[in-house]
Amino acid sequence: MAYEYRATRRVEFSETDMAGIVHFSNFFRYMETAEHAFFRSLGGSVVMPEFDPPLGLPRVHAECDYLHPLRFEDEIEIHLWVTEKKPKSLSYLFRFRKLNAHPPIEVARGKLTVVCVAHGADGRLRSVLIPKPVADRIEVAPAAVLAGPHGGRGD
Amino acid sequence: MAYEYRATRRVEFSETDMAGIVHFSNFFRYMETAEHAFFRSLGGSVVMPEFDPPLGLPRVHAECDYLHPLRFEDEIEIHLWVTEKKPKSLSYLFRFRKLNAHPPIEVARGKLTVVCVAHGADGRLRSVLIPKPVADRIEVAPAAVLAGPHGGRGD
Amino acid sequence: MAYEYRATRRVEFSETDMAGIVHFSNFFRYMETAEHAFFRSLGGSVVMPEFDPPLGLPRVHAECDYLHPLRFEDEIEIHLWVTEKKPKSLSYLFRFRKLNAHPPIEVARGKLTVVCVAHGADGRLRSVLIPKPVADRIEVAPAAVLAGPHGGRGD
Amino acid sequence: MAYEYRATRRVEFSETDMAGIVHFSNFFRYMETAEHAFFRSLGGSVVMPEFDPPLGLPRVHAECDYLHPLRFEDEIEIHLWVTEKKPKSLSYLFRFRKLNAHPPIEVARGKLTVVCVAHGADGRLRSVLIPKPVADRIEVAPAAVLAGPHGGRGD
Repeated sequence: MAYEYRATRRVEFSETDMAGIVHFSNFFRYMETAEHAFFRSLGGSVVMPEFDPPLGLPRVHAECDYLHPLRFEDEIEIHLWVTEKKPKSLSYLFRFRKLNAHPPIEVARGKLTVVCVAHGADGRLRSVLIPKPVADRIEVAPAAVLAGPHGGRGD
Repeated sequence: MAYEYRATRRVEFSETDMAGIVHFSNFFRYMETAEHAFFRSLGGSVVMPEFDPPLGLPRVHAECDYLHPLRFEDEIEIHLWVTEKKPKSLSYLFRFRKLNAHPPIEVARGKLTVVCVAHGADGRLRSVLIPKPVADRIEVAPAAVLAGPHGGRGD
Repeated sequence: MAYEYRATRRVEFSETDMAGIVHFSNFFRYMETAEHAFFRSLGGSVVMPEFDPPLGLPRVHAECDYLHPLRFEDEIEIHLWVTEKKPKSLSYLFRFRKLNAHPPIEVARGKLTVVCVAHGADGRLRSVLIPKPVADRIEVAPAAVLAGPHGGRGD
Repeated sequence: MAYEYRATRRVEFSETDMAGIVHFSNFFRYMETAEHAFFRSLGGSVVMPEFDPPLGLPRVHAECDYLHPLRFEDEIEIHLWVTEKKPKSLSYLFRFRKLNAHPPIEVARGKLTVVCVAHGADGRLRSVLIPKPVADRIEVAPAAVLAGPHGGRGD
């Protein structure tokens, strides 16, 4: 059972824009990449072709608050916490920290909600139960963790 | 004075992902592109190098709710409304419609809040007043529009 | 029968990088988007799910020479010519012009070679003949066009 | 003095397209990221704001040959070799290998040529000498390396 994951990465040149900072849309890619690494850390993958019809986890909600800009070659930590677990959906909280600041500073907060769906042969998406082997490995982060000084809701 | 803008575009192949649908991060690019077309419709540009130091409008909040997937070659309308106007910031509501559905269907709703900043020579961003020539051309959408059947909050 | 297509677009903010110019990788997206519009102009689509197994046109070669930078809000023409047509592959030449320069200037030249493939159930790609309805609508640009003052090889 | 660098990365979901494979434009981003890691390995950065006017290394040529597709979560090695060094430009060869194949297979080959430029206050780019501290740390890969079984030109 796991409720958190920390991914790190370095800002790439192609992720910056003409304002000299990371384009805001990339924070959503960063969140997703951290989520996928979280799934791998549990021994699986967010792509589940072993089910028939194939399952996926499209996003139904995404948001981000931007506190400080990120720039080329900055080192970032993306800390993921599971904040809600329902039979067909999961919600995450993300805290972005810039590690090459002294001390590291929080630069953004994000949230994603994903729903488990089956991809029908007709192209339609239908919400389904999260497969038990996946659901059994994921739990909601304790309130104390989310509220704590290093947790998702404090600083 | 303007409070809304409608942009249209067609989904490009490179905007899809292996699930066969538009990657969720691209909706944020679509919102921004509609915002920039809105500024051009007012006779200006969101990039304001004529000010010294140069001004920009980075995002401080972004969110999106996804209702239906978009696919390659879908035609989309991105309808922008100004929902809040403060001395240093603007908030927008976006409604995405898939025009090649019969009838067109709403596929997503988004929000952005942007803050006017000056880019200092040291790389720091400092919030400043939205320049009067820009602020004078923008107003908040009337509540009746946002609440109406074709408005941002109804369907 | 067609051998050329002209697409136009405007540079988006998210396509720029911290050097203030369009990131070089985006020229490849621009080429592909022009190719797809070319296929639509012929009454079809580059995505051919009506065949079983589904067909696609992945790239086997891509290149670009960059002459002048493009910047935010520049208007671009992407002119595509078919330079080679084989039973299983097509090659294109692309000329990029910046339309908001006076006179318009050529900013880049590109080439793509695509191969028609079938996507097998096992995930493998196998090269196949371009379907006759598609192949019948495409021809190679005459040498005189490619060599001419407004053609692909002159200026 | 260095003439090569090996970077590794894992394919992200947002880098795939609806054909289920990495979009071809991303190979160019991968090349650039390996180049930037090469510069960091030399103790510097490809972004050189310490010069006045600021220097950059825009691409004047880019190309890629695609041999096999890459898919979500594939592990890739991007091997860079310096193939040409001129007073104002550098050329690289890249070999992409998929490390999670047994044995690893080559999936693509790429080339980039970059030119050192100064960004003038008027927005113009002017080619300039590569700064000596940078040029002194870079050399061309020996022909035997490029021709060898594990080198850039053999397999």
